[in-house]
Amino acid sequence: MNRPFPLNAWYAAAYDVEVGRGLLARTVCDQALVLYRRADGRAVVLEDACWHRLLPLSKGRLQADEVVCGYHGLVYNSEGLCTHMPSQETLNPSACVRAYPVVEKHRLVWVWPGDPALADPAIVPDLHWNDDPAWAGDGKVIHVRCDYRLVLDNLMDLTHEAFVHGSSIGQRALAEAPFVATHGDRSATVTRWMENIAAPPFWAGQIKRVRGYEGPVDRWQIIRFEGPCTVAIDVGVAEAGSGASQGDRSRGVNGYVLNTITPETATTCHYFWAFARNYLLGDQRLTHELREGVARIFHEDELILEAQQLAIDARPGRAFNNLNIDAGSLWARKLIDGLVAAEAQGRPVIPLRPIAPSGE
Amino acid sequence: MNRPFPLNAWYAAAYDVEVGRGLLARTVCDQALVLYRRADGRAVVLEDACWHRLLPLSKGRLQADEVVCGYHGLVYNSEGLCTHMPSQETLNPSACVRAYPVVEKHRLVWVWPGDPALADPAIVPDLHWNDDPAWAGDGKVIHVRCDYRLVLDNLMDLTHEAFVHGSSIGQRALAEAPFVATHGDRSATVTRWMENIAAPPFWAGQIKRVRGYEGPVDRWQIIRFEGPCTVAIDVGVAEAGSGASQGDRSRGVNGYVLNTITPETATTCHYFWAFARNYLLGDQRLTHELREGVARIFHEDELILEAQQLAIDARPGRAFNNLNIDAGSLWARKLIDGLVAAEAQGRPVIPLRPIAPSGE
Amino acid sequence: MNRPFPLNAWYAAAYDVEVGRGLLARTVCDQALVLYRRADGRAVVLEDACWHRLLPLSKGRLQADEVVCGYHGLVYNSEGLCTHMPSQETLNPSACVRAYPVVEKHRLVWVWPGDPALADPAIVPDLHWNDDPAWAGDGKVIHVRCDYRLVLDNLMDLTHEAFVHGSSIGQRALAEAPFVATHGDRSATVTRWMENIAAPPFWAGQIKRVRGYEGPVDRWQIIRFEGPCTVAIDVGVAEAGSGASQGDRSRGVNGYVLNTITPETATTCHYFWAFARNYLLGDQRLTHELREGVARIFHEDELILEAQQLAIDARPGRAFNNLNIDAGSLWARKLIDGLVAAEAQGRPVIPLRPIAPSGE
Repeated sequence: MNRPFPLNAWYAAAYDVEVGRGLLARTVCDQALVLYRRADGRAVVLEDACWHRLLPLSKGRLQADEVVCGYHGLVYNSEGLCTHMPSQETLNPSACVRAYPVVEKHRLVWVWPGDPALADPAIVPDLHWNDDPAWAGDGKVIHVRCDYRLVLDNLMDLTHEAFVHGSSIGQRALAEAPFVATHGDRSATVTRWMENIAAPPFWAGQIKRVRGYEGPVDRWQIIRFEGPCTVAIDVGVAEAGSGASQGDRSRGVNGYVLNTITPETATTCHYFWAFARNYLLGDQRLTHELREGVARIFHEDELILEAQQLAIDARPGRAFNNLNIDAGSLWARKLIDGLVAAEAQGRPVIPLRPIAPSGE
Repeated sequence: MNRPFPLNAWYAAAYDVEVGRGLLARTVCDQALVLYRRADGRAVVLEDACWHRLLPLSKGRLQADEVVCGYHGLVYNSEGLCTHMPSQETLNPSACVRAYPVVEKHRLVWVWPGDPALADPAIVPDLHWNDDPAWAGDGKVIHVRCDYRLVLDNLMDLTHEAFVHGSSIGQRALAEAPFVATHGDRSATVTRWMENIAAPPFWAGQIKRVRGYEGPVDRWQIIRFEGPCTVAIDVGVAEAGSGASQGDRSRGVNGYVLNTITPETATTCHYFWAFARNYLLGDQRLTHELREGVARIFHEDELILEAQQLAIDARPGRAFNNLNIDAGSLWARKLIDGLVAAEAQGRPVIPLRPIAPSGE
Repeated sequence: MNRPFPLNAWYAAAYDVEVGRGLLARTVCDQALVLYRRADGRAVVLEDACWHRLLPLSKGRLQADEVVCGYHGLVYNSEGLCTHMPSQETLNPSACVRAYPVVEKHRLVWVWPGDPALADPAIVPDLHWNDDPAWAGDGKVIHVRCDYRLVLDNLMDLTHEAFVHGSSIGQRALAEAPFVATHGDRSATVTRWMENIAAPPFWAGQIKRVRGYEGPVDRWQIIRFEGPCTVAIDVGVAEAGSGASQGDRSRGVNGYVLNTITPETATTCHYFWAFARNYLLGDQRLTHELREGVARIFHEDELILEAQQLAIDARPGRAFNNLNIDAGSLWARKLIDGLVAAEAQGRPVIPLRPIAPSGE
């Protein structure tokens, strides 16, 4: 089992706005998908290869709620069944493409690449800040040429901010402050409080603007991983000593860095991220500014992650060494390994016949 | 035997005008070739790798009728024998490169990559419309990143015109009209008549111009495959009911789409095509217009074919499914498989020693 | 043993001026290295992969004499030992990267990728003309996509100059004149005298300028290979019959083409070259002109060498054929094969633990 990801899981395939009345091609977990939206608004995900001669269906066109192949005109409905063939009246009853379970939630379209019988909508990861009226924000999806687990390592240990993001959110305190790592069955949490420190440039600007405050702060990072690939990070600063670590954040500013990283292949991924805040909700300029600011920071990570993947590729079989700071990422990887191993023992996760999307 | 093409066959290596008093490099059936023309006009095809250190001879230069290697100056004559070595008087008698049987016919230079003893000039495929004075036309060669058999599939079933070429030659009737598929020992034919239909844009223009006619037409497509990789398609329209299907084409316009697809490697090919017509023979503007019009249509195919090859590459071992419309291409592939299998049982098709080109 | 180079040898990793108070990444013999210079001027070469998560250290920064990893801030000293880890007081005693033996000599920084215990500074190849006050000159390093041995073949037989460099240094006499090839334990020499010939354009210009002489010359090329990959070529012309071949070069002009070719991988290399002369030492314009002139000549070789490598890659298992002119390169390759074979029998040449650079 060389696949570094489980198939029985919900993966973000697209932002909701990316899916419309056209055909979107995207590969998730080594499976080529075509995404579109039916006239009734429901998102559809089909295998992106015509049953006949494998041409990607995304090269064709949408016709009402069906997809017409761009080569010989075979037509598939939203359950993946072929409803028309050229020059013949009788349809081959086995003619179909796989249709995937789909759930649209928290501004993302989630797909289940494994066994459809196990696709429980209740276990879509929690990224509710993305469409909670008490929070405002925006995000992007970027394509990164690395194993999705390298992004998880990156997020589970924010010590790297001191070295990679020194001009914005990084500061020495991150590499010095103690942290606590805990874990559950399908989650892992790393909590770090840095009390009575100077705010880094990014947060100094936010707390000054929102609270008019310029002094020392208590800073927090509460990183929560939800297997296999979602990380929601509760971040913020409050006036030093105002009680934030005991639960009173009224003198602070708070954001959530929301991340879900979908494997495209074993060594590439789609990284969906957003930054949400619970202050100045109607300020569109701030939303724009924060989104672009975070995009710049994540681009710094992207350069590191792609260089790291190349270094790994050049050294097959070479293991990582670990530091204390890796406690969170080690739990996350252990959870992923468990999910992958569990699948390897069971029945095939991809059925041979298509199954209607959940909810039909 | 993973090679998807026979070696004992004539393959078009170049248009006649491409071969002159310079060195042209081209790979045919995984064999790197250098082509040139002797002072007496005869085309020569040699292995494109110096006996000494493998530098492509095409990096060197022509000297009278011989090729001088661009590295150390070894000289080869048009039979591939080394006639000069630097700094030594005595030539190694084994010093040579392979010379290939060559025939120039119907405006193409054909090469035989297999056993020279079997290279019978009588079996060069029939593309005589390319230089028959009763026909006028022109063509091109394009490089397509796909298995040459995908191009054959494409040509053996023109149903795809309805979906890929809707703005020019495609029309719904193509996907609805019945057809007849027959085959011989080394050929397969698909005949489709569409009677009393509206002409598609391309043909409506031609018949109006030549016959002053604007009404419904009888349209035909008679596709003839000649193994391993040549397809000549008799196409045209005539006034509906004027007897074209019974042999009287006097009220119609007629063209031939001439195609021969040479494997470069297992997944790339050189696609030589031309369009010939038997009307308005002296109209150079029409020749130019038709050539560019067909080039646009074939570019639409190229996009499909390359996407299809990528889809195949991503799914090793996955078989195609077939429709009724695939009858012609199935015969063509069966004939090719037979040619490849016959070679696999016999003696090696590439001799160790070079043999003089046929006709010497 | 597929590696075509020995590891127990000194290889040029950089020109001296390339290594300074920044981090230079370069791969030598498949080993990714980071080079820098300490405040005391000493050149340091470390493995370019952090012990922790493999990020290339060259993506980080220099801090005094230590390297800080650009991801999590691990710090390594110039012996490769980790001296700081983020968020922990106790350092893992195994945390280190490999430090390589380094010698700086004749304007190049030499590294020993094999067993450090064998790294004897006395066996650095002799390229003293590079910094001898009796000689003036300059050079470059180019990256060539070929097996370094193809460059050696190229240099050990200068017959190719007649065909590749016809407009500058090439002339027919090169391919006709006899030569003598000799060899020692770790060296091979090819000597060619061409007496009473017309000077080729390059040398005609030099001797006219230095000696005011325009007549026939005696030309020499004395090529000395020093295993595994250094070639110093004594070249020049003198007035015909003035005694140069007997040792009196007073009526001539003399240069040295200095070459050392470092394998980057099995099929790519770093080619360090320089041209030194013993006349008009202070003429900076001439130095500049000669450097660019030689660069143009070597670019002609580069095109040949890369085409040759592609031709080799396309024909796995196909051996070269040899001519008389290959005597020198055959000795050079035989010496290399011997060095590689000797290593293959012995203990592993790369120790598991880092060893301090020689001279510490």
